[in-house]
Amino acid sequence: MRILLIGGTGTIGKAVHAELKPRHEVIVVGHQHGDYKVDIEDAASIEKLYKNVGHFDAVIATTGKVHFGDLNTMSAKEYAIGLQNKLMGQVNLVLIGSHYISEGGSFTLTSGILSRDPIRFGSSASMVNGAIDSFVQAAAIELPKNIRINSVSPTVLTESMPVYGEYFRGFESVSAARVALAYSKSVEGQQTGKIYSVV
Amino acid sequence: MRILLIGGTGTIGKAVHAELKPRHEVIVVGHQHGDYKVDIEDAASIEKLYKNVGHFDAVIATTGKVHFGDLNTMSAKEYAIGLQNKLMGQVNLVLIGSHYISEGGSFTLTSGILSRDPIRFGSSASMVNGAIDSFVQAAAIELPKNIRINSVSPTVLTESMPVYGEYFRGFESVSAARVALAYSKSVEGQQTGKIYSVV
Repeated sequence: MRILLIGGTGTIGKAVHAELKPRHEVIVVGHQHGDYKVDIEDAASIEKLYKNVGHFDAVIATTGKVHFGDLNTMSAKEYAIGLQNKLMGQVNLVLIGSHYISEGGSFTLTSGILSRDPIRFGSSASMVNGAIDSFVQAAAIELPKNIRINSVSPTVLTESMPVYGEYFRGFESVSAARVALAYSKSVEGQQTGKIYSVV
Repeated sequence: MRILLIGGTGTIGKAVHAELKPRHEVIVVGHQHGDYKVDIEDAASIEKLYKNVGHFDAVIATTGKVHFGDLNTMSAKEYAIGLQNKLMGQVNLVLIGSHYISEGGSFTLTSGILSRDPIRFGSSASMVNGAIDSFVQAAAIELPKNIRINSVSPTVLTESMPVYGEYFRGFESVSAARVALAYSKSVEGQQTGKIYSVV
């Protein structure tokens, strides 16, 4: 398969790349680095990416910003960051990409455990992750051309614990390599409308 | 208790009003009708409502617009309607209202079954409902002053079947009066961070 890996320069992205590279042509797309560049907040940039990249069979998005902060000092402005970037950025990759992807292609988005296991300062991430998981279930029944769509919802990465560990006390972390298996299942399997929880 | 019922002129709102009125002072807030008016898309309008209404112990939101339509013809513009109105409108009622509500007060938001049981043309509603349910779980652990927060996630209303029935074939509908019980449980009980599914 020819796979677009958007966010391929991040911790999860690199592990997904390592997992899929032996069997597929993986094209790494980043915001500033990679084989191609894209700004997922900009529909025109997404459209341009798909036009330039040619034929592809799968899109994996392992990207998305959200604001972490105290709910009691946050306003709509801080929530808008996650809604525009991690949520609608990934959703736009689907809405626009569905016109370009191969028959029977797949989209795999990234949400996260905070949708159902919240932490302090994580209310925007919770909101966005819940939205992604529900969108994926809905989109699966409407996408044309036998296109499939799933999300991967990982807990905190072992690789992230040195930096984020204090916010995730008591959480069992998982390696990026283990999370990468869920993307393989989504892309190389046949399921659709699934949320692959990796905990 | 003194309860602000925002969206009190809709089908669910009227049933919630009937359920709570015998035991509480219920103040009906609508977009165009009611004891007070508010535009939930406008933070200044929400702030003004809370300033004008005086002391209150609970906020119930039974309001929120989303766009229904074919995912394959929708863009970010159509999804923005639900994100700005049903999602961030209700979230703003919480973020701003937490500064005004009584110690131990409660917020009860409205999501819906499409978060996990999608229908054709419902992808925006699914997205928004999932976001609300996850936000509620996260906000519950951060709100100050022992403030509680829950959501009510109903299936399609029996009262709505004459109009929306064709989109909900095979769904068992529930009466607005039965849905209203979940709001009573949220406001008059002691739980927090719960999603009350009414199916």
